[in-house]
Formats: sequence, structure tokens, C-alpha cells
Amino acid sequence: MTDVFHHSWLGGLFGDDEMAAIWSAESQLANMLRFEAAWSRALGRAGLVNATAANATAEAILTVKPDIAELRDGTARDGVPVPALVAAVKHALPGADNSVHQGATSQDVIDTALALSLRATSDLFLARIAALEAALHGLADKFGRNTMMGRTRMQAAVPIRVADHIDAWSGPLARHGARIADIRPRVEQLQFGGAAGNRAAVGDAAPAIAKSLATDLGLANPPRAWHAERDGVAEYGALLSLLTGALGKMGQDICLMAQRGIDEIRIRGSGGSSAMPHKQNPIPAEILVTLARFNATLVSGLHHSLVHEQERSGAAWALEWMILPQMAEATARALTLATSLTEHTEVMGR
Amino acid sequence: MTDVFHHSWLGGLFGDDEMAAIWSAESQLANMLRFEAAWSRALGRAGLVNATAANATAEAILTVKPDIAELRDGTARDGVPVPALVAAVKHALPGADNSVHQGATSQDVIDTALALSLRATSDLFLARIAALEAALHGLADKFGRNTMMGRTRMQAAVPIRVADHIDAWSGPLARHGARIADIRPRVEQLQFGGAAGNRAAVGDAAPAIAKSLATDLGLANPPRAWHAERDGVAEYGALLSLLTGALGKMGQDICLMAQRGIDEIRIRGSGGSSAMPHKQNPIPAEILVTLARFNATLVSGLHHSLVHEQERSGAAWALEWMILPQMAEATARALTLATSLTEHTEVMGR
Amino acid sequence: MTDVFHHSWLGGLFGDDEMAAIWSAESQLANMLRFEAAWSRALGRAGLVNATAANATAEAILTVKPDIAELRDGTARDGVPVPALVAAVKHALPGADNSVHQGATSQDVIDTALALSLRATSDLFLARIAALEAALHGLADKFGRNTMMGRTRMQAAVPIRVADHIDAWSGPLARHGARIADIRPRVEQLQFGGAAGNRAAVGDAAPAIAKSLATDLGLANPPRAWHAERDGVAEYGALLSLLTGALGKMGQDICLMAQRGIDEIRIRGSGGSSAMPHKQNPIPAEILVTLARFNATLVSGLHHSLVHEQERSGAAWALEWMILPQMAEATARALTLATSLTEHTEVMGR
Amino acid sequence: MTDVFHHSWLGGLFGDDEMAAIWSAESQLANMLRFEAAWSRALGRAGLVNATAANATAEAILTVKPDIAELRDGTARDGVPVPALVAAVKHALPGADNSVHQGATSQDVIDTALALSLRATSDLFLARIAALEAALHGLADKFGRNTMMGRTRMQAAVPIRVADHIDAWSGPLARHGARIADIRPRVEQLQFGGAAGNRAAVGDAAPAIAKSLATDLGLANPPRAWHAERDGVAEYGALLSLLTGALGKMGQDICLMAQRGIDEIRIRGSGGSSAMPHKQNPIPAEILVTLARFNATLVSGLHHSLVHEQERSGAAWALEWMILPQMAEATARALTLATSLTEHTEVMGR
Repeated sequence: MTDVFHHSWLGGLFGDDEMAAIWSAESQLANMLRFEAAWSRALGRAGLVNATAANATAEAILTVKPDIAELRDGTARDGVPVPALVAAVKHALPGADNSVHQGATSQDVIDTALALSLRATSDLFLARIAALEAALHGLADKFGRNTMMGRTRMQAAVPIRVADHIDAWSGPLARHGARIADIRPRVEQLQFGGAAGNRAAVGDAAPAIAKSLATDLGLANPPRAWHAERDGVAEYGALLSLLTGALGKMGQDICLMAQRGIDEIRIRGSGGSSAMPHKQNPIPAEILVTLARFNATLVSGLHHSLVHEQERSGAAWALEWMILPQMAEATARALTLATSLTEHTEVMGR
Repeated sequence: MTDVFHHSWLGGLFGDDEMAAIWSAESQLANMLRFEAAWSRALGRAGLVNATAANATAEAILTVKPDIAELRDGTARDGVPVPALVAAVKHALPGADNSVHQGATSQDVIDTALALSLRATSDLFLARIAALEAALHGLADKFGRNTMMGRTRMQAAVPIRVADHIDAWSGPLARHGARIADIRPRVEQLQFGGAAGNRAAVGDAAPAIAKSLATDLGLANPPRAWHAERDGVAEYGALLSLLTGALGKMGQDICLMAQRGIDEIRIRGSGGSSAMPHKQNPIPAEILVTLARFNATLVSGLHHSLVHEQERSGAAWALEWMILPQMAEATARALTLATSLTEHTEVMGR
Repeated sequence: MTDVFHHSWLGGLFGDDEMAAIWSAESQLANMLRFEAAWSRALGRAGLVNATAANATAEAILTVKPDIAELRDGTARDGVPVPALVAAVKHALPGADNSVHQGATSQDVIDTALALSLRATSDLFLARIAALEAALHGLADKFGRNTMMGRTRMQAAVPIRVADHIDAWSGPLARHGARIADIRPRVEQLQFGGAAGNRAAVGDAAPAIAKSLATDLGLANPPRAWHAERDGVAEYGALLSLLTGALGKMGQDICLMAQRGIDEIRIRGSGGSSAMPHKQNPIPAEILVTLARFNATLVSGLHHSLVHEQERSGAAWALEWMILPQMAEATARALTLATSLTEHTEVMGR
Repeated sequence: MTDVFHHSWLGGLFGDDEMAAIWSAESQLANMLRFEAAWSRALGRAGLVNATAANATAEAILTVKPDIAELRDGTARDGVPVPALVAAVKHALPGADNSVHQGATSQDVIDTALALSLRATSDLFLARIAALEAALHGLADKFGRNTMMGRTRMQAAVPIRVADHIDAWSGPLARHGARIADIRPRVEQLQFGGAAGNRAAVGDAAPAIAKSLATDLGLANPPRAWHAERDGVAEYGALLSLLTGALGKMGQDICLMAQRGIDEIRIRGSGGSSAMPHKQNPIPAEILVTLARFNATLVSGLHHSLVHEQERSGAAWALEWMILPQMAEATARALTLATSLTEHTEVMGR
């Protein structure tokens, strides 16, 4: 139960398979190997090693299947899987040592893999936001001209149109789309710094290597490593929480509208009770509130991680690992729940 | 990666098998069945159903193996696994319907199972705190008379004995033991309220049922349900964060002492770097800081859950599920890491 | 507006004069002077300076009126007011230098003053909790036999008695009283460590000084300084949040009960609207929710302060100053708002 | 002490006079009166009242001096100062009633005043960021070619140039400037919704009124009210925390570099100790860490405020008031502290 997303039964409520796949160990490993392959290729392109051999090494790296138990032991020992991963690659590709990982460091591998995960994450969000916007548009088409009570400070104020209420649900979504567009170039960035972040080990070849890596991986090529500049990660976390916050507001509204005595919404297929079989509970609407508060809580931890001391903070970095993927999955789940709620709305207003 | 504790390789760093077992789906299911069995027995003892038959039902309940996919689907639908679980029990025990779950509600089952998990959690903490205290005692025996620099505001102040420094690590542990003793009776409590928390469905039999349940399960028997009074859960969360906070201070201190140029501690078997094979990184010390900040972040969410509206809040309750088990595993891991660091300390002070 | 408690008009909503007085600069200064006076007396009792002269110095210290601008400048420079305060005392009491502050340090002064503030804070809470419990008892006497709808997951479940609902408001209060009793001895403690926390500057006189200080100030006499062991402070913060959380649940319930269409409570003298003069808004009930979420947010910061590096962390310590007093005033205000709401309840249930 | 920013002596450490002025009650009142004046003018322009009289009323509104005690009492009663403010305006301008506030609501006034405060806040940040960037540029000019140890995971790695280290401090600042530019149009927006957010009270005149208000006040004119869409506010809060986080990293680095035994930076005029007069403490560097963690904590509360139920949530809205202004002042202070530290750096690297 320490992980509700993949829990035997709670996973049915909280889990999101597509987002889980993006952040799975398998995808991370594939992304790390993509970095290592791109690295070998870049060493060749930059003329530091034989280019033909480096390209062959790069191709071979993508097929390496490291022993997971060794990665696990290595991570327990080194704090990161990269030394064990590099050892596995070298073991699998005897003779390729000087074109494998030479001049890179663990953080380059892991953060570049992160950038690739964030790209896939943003793509999925944009698609889901669009789906939710379309569903809300449909909801407004069906019920927008109905009337419901406008309520301020939880008390009845004056009647409004249902469309007014839906506007407050869909309004933030368009802005979230704009925010994602603003943020993407700040996080979909190559990480390349080497041991202490200044690319010293590869000397004058650094620009050529950086360009090759960025082109290969389809990432932006920043002027230097962002090892210790974590504003992009923290900003991305805030974006996740903005997303779930807007959906949590929608969920809270639905819970309030569904109250008996208020009766301004009816959702098809709401949940049952073990004690009162005929009671209808708007479970997904409640979970939207839960996910909003979950992310609103966790975003704080990512902001504490900004105090990332010196050239690399093991402590602050590992805190990102504990928090960001969970927030991403919570956000993804919130989007499907909100869309499902919208599509299962049978009546809204009167 | 959304769950670092059970992640293919990060699990080697963050995971704690013993605590994971306490909070596993398997243990939760066993605890829920223990509640249902105790419930059947209690109905019999209270004279609401035939006692012999109820006892037989109780025995049989403990052997039911519900289909996990059904629990998962049920949770997606109902927000809790209990309706599906009760259906599975009834399906497995035809004819026993009136002595199964009759008069109980989902929250009774889940929160009582939680109380049982918290009991096991506290037991594990007490054992590990004792182990860490013993290790620190040993450390003080070995190096306590050595000298190190006392530092305030991160600047050298005046020399102190190593024992003074260790005192600040072990001091909170004794108080944490006292806190656990204070808190246990407030959380190791039977949950029994029925549909709306007032035990109405079983009428005058409520006290007898409560007493039977509490005795059977070894839990305190509070005067009424605590469905909507979540102070025990939030307090427990704060305890977890107090524990990891004290260990995070220890981890931070060790990182600072291990700096080259300071050199006041040496830990055996520290982690390696993929770029600098001979560099020694005090990985577990950093992770103690990470775990402290993780729990310090998450405790906030449990306190937001105190705003638990009406007789039961689906939203606030589910937020507990997302947070508390993670905090427990983080705390358990911090305790073993701290003990291991202590035991692997080769030199402290001079 | 950066401080809603003392804001020209928001203070009317958020401010609590009694708690503000406990945490005012004036009270803090008085508490710091009490420490310095007790310190001089202790030096005399321990035989380190002439006892008669030290007692006279102690008396005189209590009457010193330091220039506040100098304290302010000193704090900007030194991070704490104590060097400037000690200079002011010495300036006011020429010739008394060797019995003033000799062997103490800033943290001793400030943390002991904190312990005195926490004592007054706990006293005020206990009185207010008792008042609220009495008010809720009165409410139950008046309306407890009425009926209202029990609601789970924000949906009507089955009718309950109003007394059942009130129980969930008053239940945590008794436990909070017990928690305060548990915590007081852990925070109402003398702080005495000297420069690096080990009382070295006063040598063998340390136990006598500690005993004298503790007796004079009415505080517990712990075996050593708690400069870097902040678990008491963080635990106290969690207590504050537990308190406001329970009251936030009450406020949320009242907001929900007051909805038109639900109409299960009527509060006398609720707030007006600039647009709709006849609308009644249960302002204090909403503010209870606000204060609960405020404290649930801030408690996290106090727990981050547990990572208090080395013998004293300026950064983590100053974070306590920014957070704890605000939480105390928020809690005090929540208690009076809850009592006022209870006393102004005209009808509950039916 | 509940407000460290304006505390008698802690204000010397935490307070920022310029930012305090922007968020002062006086400025807020002026901004609210600017809204009310613009409103009267807009009613005239839209033809709802006599334009000449409305303009005269608008001019007069700007000179009204409401009794602050009445605003305070009104806020205690109504949760907002606006009903009392409107009453004061009407009392001061007899006969002008129908051109005063007619069709507006409290939230329009307060949130528009907030937008004006945020505009001034962003202006101040941009100026201060530029000043800090210039100071860091100067620092790099002076010491950038020096060498210092690159450190990862708090352990010495390989030497780097001081310029590399400064890059990690200044890098985020340019991005923060870009973020402010991205965010400004999302928060510097007119709030105009009337009683329930749909501008119903002014009928077809709504677009003309909105345009007039936005032009008069120099704010963006969104298509509808954002009463219940608080993503701009929460995003702004995250921006504040990103700013202090980057500066907290700088402060933490400086504390670490200033350690005896490391000695890679020397800051002129560091703080003193009451126990050790010759010890130098880098107080401002520590406070940067404090302010980073303060904002990283508080940002969570603003994100919880996203769950802003229905057409207006008194509870969530008031939580913004408690949090946002504090964060703004903390951020402003961090910027001057960072610049001052930079300018007082006597040596960096070697």
C-alpha cells in the first residue's frame, strides 16, 4: 500500500497505466541507454574516438540488457544505477571501453533520461487536456443553458447558467496548455556536465558533443549543464499541481452539486456502499479533490529541492525522484477521472 | 519509478522489506478478513445470530481468498474494496449472509485494519530505535572521548567532544520512544461505527459487539467511532516525521563531517561515482536528509486530511492512504540506514 | 497585509490580542531579560561571582530598557538580538560585566524565552479548549436530541442525532488536552549550552547554574542543551495543527449544514455581502477552514527545521521564528471563533 | 513576533520596506478606491448613470478616508472590508449612491487590488533581479578566473573555475525574468464578475464596463471573471518560491564555502556571536536558506487554495491573503540579501 498507484486493488482507483509506463523502470532504462548510445556516437562525431566503431558501439548499447539485480545492488551502494549500468555495458561490449560513457557522469545520464520522460509526460497531458476540453465543451452544449444556483462562501447567491459554472472548470485548462508550452523548452534539455558540471573532461570537444547529443535525442542544447539549477524541475512540479488543483475544484463542485437537497448534477455509475447498497457516491469527484491535495502537498518538497548545494546534491536530487513521478501519475489519473466524470454526467442544472 | 520503494533498482536505496510487508496488500487483506471474522464472532456473542454458526463463519472467513481483480474493479467503482470483499466472502460462504458484515461499514473494516498495521509499525520502530540507540552507544564508547570542532551557523566555534555530538543524535530517540508510548493508545483503536458512525444498525448490541471486537483484535475500545476524528492518524504522521527529522539531522551532520578539509568522520563502504572511481560518497547519510525532507513534506497532507467533512470524507480519507504508508516505509528505511552508518563508522573525531 | 493578524482591517478577522501579547516583542524582551537576570543570579549561586553583587545585577537587569533601534541593527548584523541586548545591559550596568551573560550564548537566551512563551501559550490553549468544550456541551444540551442527516462521502446516508455530530467536534478536544499534557515537559525546558552547546565555559559549575536557572524560571532542567535537538518545537507545531485541524473540520461541517437546501444549522450574526445585502455568510466557519489549512501547511516548515545541522543552524532556527508564532496565533484565533460559532448557534438539526 | 517582517528587531533581518509598502494596508486601500473610482467612471461611460456625475464621483472616491476601525469591524463581520468601505464611500458622498459600486461585488474590488499589487511586485522583482545579475557579473569579473573545488554529494570532486560556480547562481535568474514575463498577463487582470461571477447585474453593459475598467487601471481584460479560477495566484506563488529557491541554493553554497577548512569565500561584515566575539557568521547567507524553505513551505498552501469551491470560496480565498503577501516580502528580502552578499564578497576561490 506504500504505492497506491500500483497497489493490488487501490490501483484500480489511483493508477494510470499510460503514465506509469512513461515513468517505469523499463522506460527509464531505455532512456538511459539512449543517452549512452548518443554519447558514444557523439564521441565519434567529435573525433575523440573512431567514429565507425563508436557508431557500432552505440547500436550495440541499445540492445544491452543489464542484470537488474546488479543495478539494484549498485544503486544501494552508489546512490545511482549508473556505475553499475556502465559496468554492465562495458561487460557486454568488450573492447569498447574508451567509447562508453567516457567524460560523462551519472547525473548527465539520469537527468537526460528525466528530460525524455518529461517530454512524453507533457505530450500525454496535452492530449488529455484536449480530450477533457472537448468533453466539457460537449457538456456545455448539452446543459449549458440550464440554470443552477450560483453559490459564494458556500451559500446560495443568485442563479447562474450552467455554462458559467463549466467555464470555471475549463478556463484554467487553456492556460495550462499555454503553461506547458512555456515550460517545455525549460525542461526538455540535454543534461551534460561531466564530473563537476563544467564539461572539463572532454575539453574543446564539449560543444560538438553537446550538439550531437541534443540532435540525437531531440532535446534543447543549453549553454551549460543544469546539474545544480533545478528550477525547471520545480516549475514542472508546480505545473502538475496547478493541473490537479483545477480538477480538484471541479471535483469539489461536483460533490457539492450532487448533495441530496441540492441535486444539481447526476453522474451515471457512481460508487456503492457496503452498508447502504442504494446510496450513490461520486467517487471520482472525491478522488479529484484527493489528487489535488496530494500534489499541493508534494509540490512543496520539489521546491525544497531547489536548495541544491554545490555542484550536485545527492540529498536534494533523490528527493526529486521520490516526488516528481508520483505527481505525474496523480495528474494523469486526475485528467482521465475528470473526463470520465464529464462524460458520465446525465444531468446538470435544471 | 512512481514508487521508489519498490522500484527495480531504486528499491535498493529506499526500500524496506519488513515495513513493506506490514503495509502490503496481502497484510491489509489479512487484517480486513480478521476484522470480518471478529465481526461475525461478535454478532454471535451479542446474540444477534447463532453463536456456533457465527464462529464457524468467522473461522471460514479467515480462509477466503478473494479474487484480486474483483477487489480492484470494486475499488475503482466504490472507492473502497469492502463491498467487493464482502461479496466475495458471501459468495465463498453461501448461507452465512446474515452473520457477515451485517451492521458494519467499509470504514470500520479499513480503519481497523489500519490500526492493526500501525501496531505492527510501532513495534518495528521500537525495535529499530533500540538497535540504533545501541549502535550509537557503541559509537560513543569507541570515539566519544575524541575531539571534534563544534560548529554553529556552519562556522567553527570551539572544540567539543565527539560524545557531545553523538548526544544530539541519540537524544531525540529516547523521546521518540516516549512519544510512541503516548500515541499508541490513541491510534491502536477499534473502528466501529456502522453506516453513519453511530452504531445504529446493531441497536443495544453495540457495546457487546465493540467489546468482543476489541478483545479479539487486541485493540482499545473507544466509546464511539472515530470515522471523522482523524487526529490520531495525523499525529502518527507527525511522529514519523519527527523520527526521520532527527535522523536527517544526523545524516546532514555526517555529510558535513565527511567533507575533505573537515575530515571528522570516515564511513566504510561509501558509494562510488561513475566519473571519479576513487571518490567516496556518503550515500546513506544523504538519503537520511532526503527521507527527512520527504516526510516533512508529506506530514502536511495528513494534517490537511483533518478537515474531514461530515460523517466520512472520501476525499480526505483517500489522501491518508496515499501518504501514510509511504511515510512509514521512509521512516523504517531511515532507521536502518542510520544504524548501518553508525556501525560502518571507522573514525569519528580525532 | 504581509501580516493578517495585525493588519489594519484583516486583524479584525484573524487577530487574537491575547496570543499576540504572548508572542509580542515586548514579552520576548521581558523573557530574555528574565533569562539574563536568572543567569546573573545563577553565577552568584554557583560561586563564580560575588553572590550579592550578582543578585543586585539581576534585579537591575529586569529594569533595563534597551534601545529598540539598536536591537534591530544588531539583529540585522548578528542574526540575533542578543549581542546588542547584552551590550545594552552592560552599558546600563557599568561594572557588572563579569556577572552579565558570562558563559551563556544567544541560543540559551532566545530558546529559554521561547520555552516561557510556549508555557503561556499552552496555558491559554487549555483555558480556551475548556471554554469550547463547555460551549459544545451546552450546544449538545440544547439541540443534541434533534435529528440531522448523517452524510458520508458528501452524500446523505442515514439520520443521526445532532449529539452524534457534536461528538465528532468535541472528541478531539479532550485528546488535545492530553497531548498538551504529554508535550509540556518536552518543551518547557531550560536551554543552557553555552557557545557550542556543551556548557564548557562554566566548567564544573554547570549543574549548579542549570539548577538555579531552571528553578528561577520554573522550567524543566534537562541533562544538557537542546540547541540542535528541535523535536520539541516541531512536535509543538504539529500539536497546533492538530488543534486547528479539528476546528477546521467543525467549520467545514457548519458551512455544509448552513447551505440553503440543507438548512441544518442557523448561526446568529453571520456576515453580509456587498452585492447581496440579505445573504448570510458563515464567515467564522469558513475562517476555521482557512486556519486549519494554514497550519497544516506551515507545520511542514517546522519539520524541515528538524534538519538542524551541527551544534546550531542559523538557517533552520530562523525558520522556526518565521513559522511557530504565526501558527500559535492562528490556533488561538480558531479557538475563539469556534466558541463564538457555538454560542451563536440558534438552531441545529430539527 | 507573529510577523518577523515588521517585528521590532527581527524586522532588521527579515523586513523589506519597499515590498512592505506595496502590500501595506494603505496601498491596498488606495487600490480598492482606484477600483471603485474606475467603476463609477465605467458606469458613466457605459451609460448606466450620468457620465458627468459619475466622473465627479470617481474623483471624489479617490479622496475618501474611511474610518479604519469601521473597516476592521466590517471585516470581522463580513469577512471582507468592502461592505464597510462602500458604506463609508456612500456616507462621504451623499447622493452618489447609484454610481457607487452598483453591480460590483467584494471580490471584484479585492482581486483587482491584488492584481495591481502583483504588478508593482513584479516590477520590483525585475529591478532587483537585474541588480543581482549585475552584481554577480561583477563578482565573476573579479574572481571568475580563480579556482575552487567542485563538490558533488558534498564531497570534493575536481577543481572548477569560480565562474562555473557563479553560473549556477545567475543561470536561474534569467529564466526567472522570462517566467515573470510569461506570468504577468495571467495575473495582471481585471477582476469583474459581480455577485456570482457572471456580470449579470449590469446586463449588456458588461463588456463596456470591463473595457473601461481595464483601460483605466492598466490591466488585461479577460473574457470573464476569474473569481473561482485561482491558477494565476497559485502560479505566482510558485514563481516566488522558484526565486527564493535559487537564492537559497546560493546562500547554502556560501555557508559551505565559508567553512573554516574550506575557506573559499570571505564576506565583509559578517555577523558576530554573543559568546565568541571574533567568530564570523555569514548571517545573510543563512537567511537565504531560511527564506527559500519558508516559501517552499508556503507555496503548498496556495496550491491547496486551488480547490476553490463553487463561485467563490471564502475559506480558500482567505488562505491566499494569509500566505501570498508574506511570500512576496520574503522574496524581496532574499533578493536584497543576495545582492548585498555578492557586493560584500571580498574573496572567492583562490
